[in-house]
Amino acid sequence: FGSALKQGELRVSTNIVCTTTDDRGEEPKYCGVPISDIIQDNYSIGEVISLLWFKTLLPQWATKFMEIVLVTAADHGPNVSGAHNTIVTARAGRDLGASLCSGLLTIGPRFGGAVDMAAINFKHFCDAKISPPDFVETLKKKGQRVEGIGHRIKTAENRDKRVELLSAYAKETFPSIKYLEYAQQVEAYTLQKANNLVLNIDGCIGALFVDMLSSCGEFNEEEVQEILELGALNGIFILSRSIGLIGHALDQKRMRQPLYRHPQEDVLYIASDAPPRGGRKTQE
Amino acid sequence: FGSALKQGELRVSTNIVCTTTDDRGEEPKYCGVPISDIIQDNYSIGEVISLLWFKTLLPQWATKFMEIVLVTAADHGPNVSGAHNTIVTARAGRDLGASLCSGLLTIGPRFGGAVDMAAINFKHFCDAKISPPDFVETLKKKGQRVEGIGHRIKTAENRDKRVELLSAYAKETFPSIKYLEYAQQVEAYTLQKANNLVLNIDGCIGALFVDMLSSCGEFNEEEVQEILELGALNGIFILSRSIGLIGHALDQKRMRQPLYRHPQEDVLYIASDAPPRGGRKTQE
Amino acid sequence: FGSALKQGELRVSTNIVCTTTDDRGEEPKYCGVPISDIIQDNYSIGEVISLLWFKTLLPQWATKFMEIVLVTAADHGPNVSGAHNTIVTARAGRDLGASLCSGLLTIGPRFGGAVDMAAINFKHFCDAKISPPDFVETLKKKGQRVEGIGHRIKTAENRDKRVELLSAYAKETFPSIKYLEYAQQVEAYTLQKANNLVLNIDGCIGALFVDMLSSCGEFNEEEVQEILELGALNGIFILSRSIGLIGHALDQKRMRQPLYRHPQEDVLYIASDAPPRGGRKTQE
Amino acid sequence: FGSALKQGELRVSTNIVCTTTDDRGEEPKYCGVPISDIIQDNYSIGEVISLLWFKTLLPQWATKFMEIVLVTAADHGPNVSGAHNTIVTARAGRDLGASLCSGLLTIGPRFGGAVDMAAINFKHFCDAKISPPDFVETLKKKGQRVEGIGHRIKTAENRDKRVELLSAYAKETFPSIKYLEYAQQVEAYTLQKANNLVLNIDGCIGALFVDMLSSCGEFNEEEVQEILELGALNGIFILSRSIGLIGHALDQKRMRQPLYRHPQEDVLYIASDAPPRGGRKTQE
Ligand SMILES: CC(C)(COP(=O)(O)OP(=O)(O)OC[C@H]1O[C@@H](n2cnc3c(N)ncnc32)[C@H](O)[C@@H]1OP(=O)(O)O)[C@@H](O)C(=O)NCCC(=O)NCCS
Ligand SMILES: CC(C)(COP(=O)(O)OP(=O)(O)OC[C@H]1O[C@@H](n2cnc3c(N)ncnc32)[C@H](O)[C@@H]1OP(=O)(O)O)[C@@H](O)C(=O)NCCC(=O)NCCS
Ligand SMILES: CC(C)(COP(=O)(O)OP(=O)(O)OC[C@H]1O[C@@H](n2cnc3c(N)ncnc32)[C@H](O)[C@@H]1OP(=O)(O)O)[C@@H](O)C(=O)NCCC(=O)NCCS
Ligand SMILES: CC(C)(COP(=O)(O)OP(=O)(O)OC[C@H]1O[C@@H](n2cnc3c(N)ncnc32)[C@H](O)[C@@H]1OP(=O)(O)O)[C@@H](O)C(=O)NCCC(=O)NCCS
Repeated sequence: FGSALKQGELRVSTNIVCTTTDDRGEEPKYCGVPISDIIQDNYSIGEVISLLWFKTLLPQWATKFMEIVLVTAADHGPNVSGAHNTIVTARAGRDLGASLCSGLLTIGPRFGGAVDMAAINFKHFCDAKISPPDFVETLKKKGQRVEGIGHRIKTAENRDKRVELLSAYAKETFPSIKYLEYAQQVEAYTLQKANNLVLNIDGCIGALFVDMLSSCGEFNEEEVQEILELGALNGIFILSRSIGLIGHALDQKRMRQPLYRHPQEDVLYIASDAPPRGGRKTQE
Repeated sequence: FGSALKQGELRVSTNIVCTTTDDRGEEPKYCGVPISDIIQDNYSIGEVISLLWFKTLLPQWATKFMEIVLVTAADHGPNVSGAHNTIVTARAGRDLGASLCSGLLTIGPRFGGAVDMAAINFKHFCDAKISPPDFVETLKKKGQRVEGIGHRIKTAENRDKRVELLSAYAKETFPSIKYLEYAQQVEAYTLQKANNLVLNIDGCIGALFVDMLSSCGEFNEEEVQEILELGALNGIFILSRSIGLIGHALDQKRMRQPLYRHPQEDVLYIASDAPPRGGRKTQE
Repeated sequence: FGSALKQGELRVSTNIVCTTTDDRGEEPKYCGVPISDIIQDNYSIGEVISLLWFKTLLPQWATKFMEIVLVTAADHGPNVSGAHNTIVTARAGRDLGASLCSGLLTIGPRFGGAVDMAAINFKHFCDAKISPPDFVETLKKKGQRVEGIGHRIKTAENRDKRVELLSAYAKETFPSIKYLEYAQQVEAYTLQKANNLVLNIDGCIGALFVDMLSSCGEFNEEEVQEILELGALNGIFILSRSIGLIGHALDQKRMRQPLYRHPQEDVLYIASDAPPRGGRKTQE
Repeated sequence: FGSALKQGELRVSTNIVCTTTDDRGEEPKYCGVPISDIIQDNYSIGEVISLLWFKTLLPQWATKFMEIVLVTAADHGPNVSGAHNTIVTARAGRDLGASLCSGLLTIGPRFGGAVDMAAINFKHFCDAKISPPDFVETLKKKGQRVEGIGHRIKTAENRDKRVELLSAYAKETFPSIKYLEYAQQVEAYTLQKANNLVLNIDGCIGALFVDMLSSCGEFNEEEVQEILELGALNGIFILSRSIGLIGHALDQKRMRQPLYRHPQEDVLYIASDAPPRGGRKTQE
């Protein structure tokens, strides 16, 4: 860049490449669609996500599915890591953006990550034509649980309505629900082990997201895999939960809650004696 | 602790208060609505935002308005502060969450903040019954520009279609567009000064957000003011732009872009000589 | 920039200006000092801070003072907002950087900010030659407490040793401790009100930071004020506390602590009934 | 809750465990050492890091080594990812904390991570008694470069003075420099391939950090490995670079630099046509 500049040449190789939004004309375009068309033609949030994340327009059953996930995962109460940290930060008097980020930074393998792992696992084992029982037992041998299976309260008899509604929506509208069916067979097997080892909401969303990508006709197998690995499903969770986190921050600010200090009684201090100066070895 | 609670022995003053989501029952409730109802009754994203942020259900013209804003502000290209920092972080090999937060942290007074300030100003001066020309001149005397007025390209003759579409939507559906009309009178006055001092998209959204809150029948004047001060409009911008930022992070990862290093040629180094050890004073 | 480029001209006006580190030569220079000199000549951390933040070399009594503050404020236990959020994030399985940032984002007006406000206040009222009693009463009339005064346990008889040691260090080494003396006179006055209204560690650090800047011979009055407003003292607190936050993150990871979930019993849920669809007004 | 505790009625299992700082007494203790002792006995920053991160007091040659690394890696100019994002955020008018975090979030595998990977690799292959040439060729076969080897400018004849000074310090003060010597043998081998494949500053710090941990007499082999895996070396880099990032934020604020917008000319837009509504498949 610099040397081309110095030679006064015009063919600059740019430092940045962008394939999502083009901001050069009179108004920005999302993947070729000017924002005024977005308004005029009534593009939904799911469709805008489709344009900006997948660079295509998925069919309406798919964009609608993403919107259902967005409202379903928007909040899970004040006690999970993300909401809790957002609450603490809002109570420290920080602005909305900082409060949101403090919470978002907890999202990862243990908080919010089950849905991604469920998606990747169901896809992997289903594609490899490994039978559901073999899948479960394979993980068990490695000492791993099946992501997306198990619920504290819900059982075969007392089903999670959210899972049922999402499954029903997909059954009705998706061209194929191969991965959901695989997940349901996994559940059939784990239910033989214990009554609460049902397909949970994370597992259901994970399986259906794979079904959506695989059967929408826009992506080949490799691209489906890539989208999962890039973390698009994680993106849906992050975006969705942001709604709830912002809600918690506004809630604390509205109530003018004071600085949070965790109760000392809730901490186990494992004391050490002051170590000798200069290292223990030196003292011998 | 929990068991003492269950036995009703202790009057506990809790450390945390939450009025948005209740996660105690079989499934979480958003402001009293169980998530399975959210799915079954087809609540929109705007309605869920209404429940979790405003603890009420705004009418559909209002929740739809918030959704239009969400798609309208979702992205503005790769060059603005937020997108740029997200791109740099994604190219440093960091995950989606960290990339998003690095970008979100730039949102504030100068990036994304115009819409909040436009809302607060239009409300303040309109409520105080200060005429649009007086409003403009008052700010001018303080050396301030009117937030939400002015565009690089757009003029009275070459209108911003987004502004026209949003205004048309509000005119058709809102009970009152008092604040938009005030903003338009401000524009009429500034257009006498220069042809490009039009009401821009930030100003239009800001004014209409005040109209939405004021005329939806759910909030009194004080509550409208509080919602603005808590930063709910900022929340809409943050949530909206998160869609675009996640899109940029996925884009960079998909293209496997390498670590970004800003070109040295683009930096002016203002050199200093090495200062003497121990402070200049000591040397004298 | 772009148009100059297009014309093939060489005089580029850069987009970025930097006056701290120059990375152009064989090795970077901190304010003119090559890093190898930093190593060879045994520059201390305080001196490097001085070079990179203040673009000069403060005298050793000053850089040493900053180092004392760095060790003094490094940690304050696991219960304060910053440590708590870092702990929660580390337990969510996130990396050190994300855990640290989640905690750092809580630092602001209520957590860590007292020291800045103490510095600014003591400077302002001392410079304005307002007597300590008048200062206290002025704030009292506005319903404000004096930042940097008051302690839960410490009293006139049971002094905070940290405050005494820092004050003693300054008395011995600083050319002037005018602002500390002002703060001590404030304390003398508040102690007449209550025995625990002592000058606390935040107030002591704040006053002494102003003394350091004012008497080091490197800055004029305006520059001292600017350094305070830019947030350099906040920078010291942030840097210092980062040591403790990283310590907490490592601690949790070492103990392989599981995902934190705040105990439901510690939350007061203020329930609302599900609001009617479409806004209350519509229902009437 | 607290009062039940005081009456000894409830056997509480706490939700949080902490082994670093104890904030229960009159003043906090770092690993058993009260902060007033930290001041009075003149504990250095390296020693406080040792207490809070390693829960012991490393010998002075080790804590001093960490301090040298802290000053050596404090900044590397405005163009690297971290500094750049901090600059952009500061120019967006955000506070010091947000600006710092926006930059810190870029630290990871590609920015700042080389030193960790160098440490882990040198330790692994040296412990496995794999000869330096075999180490290099093993990585080469996997298509990997040796982390910590190679420099844009520096060569066998034009050595990096920082590497020489750090090596000399270690040679003089460390009980053993086994890993540095291994790294130097790797360099001897790669230098036969090309003149610039020298041991660079990242590789030198990485190897010496392993030497420090292994020969300080405080940790057994397993503990050394654990400390590396927990990311303590990454912590040193993060803490060190925070000094520089804060410096850049102060610098931009001092100069009142305006909002940064990346130049459009530096972006390659890869356009797509607007995709048909409802998915391509639907259109066929
Ligand atoms: C719900 C859950 C905690 C089960 O709790 P539990 O009833 O206490 O079960 P236990 O941990 O005692 O395990 C009982 C048996 O079920 C097995 N099991 C539990 N969860 C399992 C899973 N997800 N996959 C396979 N087996 C599982 C255990 O291995 C154990 O088998 P064993 O008796 O042969 O050793 C657990 O399934 C889980 O954590 N699931 C994931 C939860 C999740 O995804 N939550 C988010 C959605 S809301
Ligand atoms: C668009 C903009 C840069 C105008 O640029 P410009 O045409 O170069 O205008 P100038 O800065 O030269 O100003 C020309 C005159 O208009 C006035 N002016 C410009 N913007 C003004 C505003 N927002 N309110 C009032 N007066 C304004 C200037 O004060 C100046 O008056 P003067 O000649 O009496 O001194 C400016 O209006 C602006 O920054 N607006 C806000 C942009 C915004 O909100 N963007 C986000 C939405 S896309
Ligand atoms: C320590 C502290 C909580 C005092 O608690 P307390 O003894 O319960 O005192 P109260 O809140 O009951 O106030 C008692 C009186 O002292 C006054 N007072 C308390 N703190 C004061 C302060 N900082 N400045 C001036 N007056 C103060 C109160 O206004 C009240 O006066 P009144 O009786 O005329 O109304 C309070 O001083 C404080 O928060 N100080 C700042 C703490 C701080 O900086 N902490 C960080 C360092 S570790
Ligand atoms: C400095 C560096 C860019 C070398 O650049 P270069 O001279 O252009 O070298 P090339 O990329 O053309 O490679 C030349 C040869 O050296 C080899 N090589 C380069 N770096 C190597 C390394 N770190 N380990 C082993 N071999 C290496 C290449 O594989 C290539 O071998 P080949 O010709 O057999 O294919 C590279 O060594 C590097 O990135 N090192 C790490 C930099 C680092 O740690 N920086 C931070 C400290 S300041």
